[in-house]
Amino acid sequence: MQVFNDVKEMQNWCLNKKRQGQKIGLVPTMGYLHAGHLSLVKEAGRHCDIVVVSIFVNPTQFGPNEDFDSYPRDVESDRKKLAEEKVDAIFAPSARDMYREGYNSWVELKGEITSKLCGGSREGHFRGVTTVVSKLFNICQPDKAFFGQKDAQQAMIIEKMVQELNFPITIVRVPIVREADGLALSSRNVYLDEEQRRQALVLSRSLQKARQLAEDGERNVSRLKQEIRKMIEAATQANIDYVEIYDAEDLGDVEEIRGSVLIALAVKFGNTRLIDNLIVEV
Amino acid sequence: MQVFNDVKEMQNWCLNKKRQGQKIGLVPTMGYLHAGHLSLVKEAGRHCDIVVVSIFVNPTQFGPNEDFDSYPRDVESDRKKLAEEKVDAIFAPSARDMYREGYNSWVELKGEITSKLCGGSREGHFRGVTTVVSKLFNICQPDKAFFGQKDAQQAMIIEKMVQELNFPITIVRVPIVREADGLALSSRNVYLDEEQRRQALVLSRSLQKARQLAEDGERNVSRLKQEIRKMIEAATQANIDYVEIYDAEDLGDVEEIRGSVLIALAVKFGNTRLIDNLIVEV
Repeated sequence: MQVFNDVKEMQNWCLNKKRQGQKIGLVPTMGYLHAGHLSLVKEAGRHCDIVVVSIFVNPTQFGPNEDFDSYPRDVESDRKKLAEEKVDAIFAPSARDMYREGYNSWVELKGEITSKLCGGSREGHFRGVTTVVSKLFNICQPDKAFFGQKDAQQAMIIEKMVQELNFPITIVRVPIVREADGLALSSRNVYLDEEQRRQALVLSRSLQKARQLAEDGERNVSRLKQEIRKMIEAATQANIDYVEIYDAEDLGDVEEIRGSVLIALAVKFGNTRLIDNLIVEV
Repeated sequence: MQVFNDVKEMQNWCLNKKRQGQKIGLVPTMGYLHAGHLSLVKEAGRHCDIVVVSIFVNPTQFGPNEDFDSYPRDVESDRKKLAEEKVDAIFAPSARDMYREGYNSWVELKGEITSKLCGGSREGHFRGVTTVVSKLFNICQPDKAFFGQKDAQQAMIIEKMVQELNFPITIVRVPIVREADGLALSSRNVYLDEEQRRQALVLSRSLQKARQLAEDGERNVSRLKQEIRKMIEAATQANIDYVEIYDAEDLGDVEEIRGSVLIALAVKFGNTRLIDNLIVEV
């Protein structure tokens, strides 16, 4: 397993692999890897000849009042975890190499798909995501790229970007990995104190409850959202950012549960903002 | 020489050529080809194994009051001209295939490089250019892409975009091709009536005059711009959009001629907007 810090060296290595006819799988991460990331890595190993994992805490997707500086980092531990997987290269560039002085090229998707959910509460976030992912695509030249369903909106946006900008890349979505008690894995879980960790279970539980209600015949979106809010608000440290239900294909508004809908939550516990989601098909 | 109208077919053909180790040269055009375009095509033939010429009048780079509908088109004549050159494929997609319903993915460079010159008078123009060129790059997978120095600002923007978004592509700039009397070739020259055509010579002549003054020692940018304006205003049908002198690397402001500067003009004759430019090095 090779580690690349230099953009040009990583790109030349990947272009060379491509010339040899190898299929490259890219797993873009911000590091501090957990079993969720590793499930992406394993999936990439099943699909591709070469697996590249990028580790880059991308400054342009953090708002000015967000946790860029405190975002957890442990590259050495990440390296060890990846060494036990079928990984051919780690790409861990510096922010200075990714964004040179005077940097001003942006890839941006407009419309509901980026303005709703996390786009509403994190201004500029998705512009940072689509820009850095475009750069990673151009550097690493993947045939397939692997994204977690945990960031459902992000995966949806990347799929639309790939299609509309004609990247010759297949996006593979990988299911959410959860702790035994249901909490969705996230690098940010490490911020939670014991009580917050306990209360954070309300995210997955309220989603399960909503799914149960839908399966039992509840079709009214407002009532379902109300049920979820009620459960979350019962957790004393929970502070709801959003509870939403949208069409799972394009984030279009829905008034009743029909076809495939995305139930998505963002909730703060202290300064820690957690997200979770579930797709319900009826 | 093959002609592709379908995006996916063009992309698959190019990906296949790449897998065979061929170097692809791309010449993006809006068609209605003249000797300026053909000089790009010939240059591509000298650099690359495979030459792809795209012909696409890109709607997203025209403003609502610009000449998209009337922009001259003659695909059959273009095809004949290209058949006489070393061209392997023409890519002539439909706007519907390039921009599907709900299209909303944009590549945009912010800052002076896009807000000055044509960016000031043609709002949204460069966003349309960088978006369509990114799409063409992803579809045609060029190793090198060829742009005319006639659109100096465009070439500069594309070079910055390629560097900042990490496209593994070399941009080759090709000099302006002029009529015997000095008029820079442009598809829009067909709009000019006989008198306008005669008066339009003032563009290249005023640029030559400015270069002469600089070579004779004039260093003051305001005075040079004033000299150019005076010459152009003497043409009764000329309507100046801009006369500017900027740093030739980054369009930074300059107060005196030093190093490499770009002298750039945009002038309307009736409804026809013509541009021309010259790089002066002292």
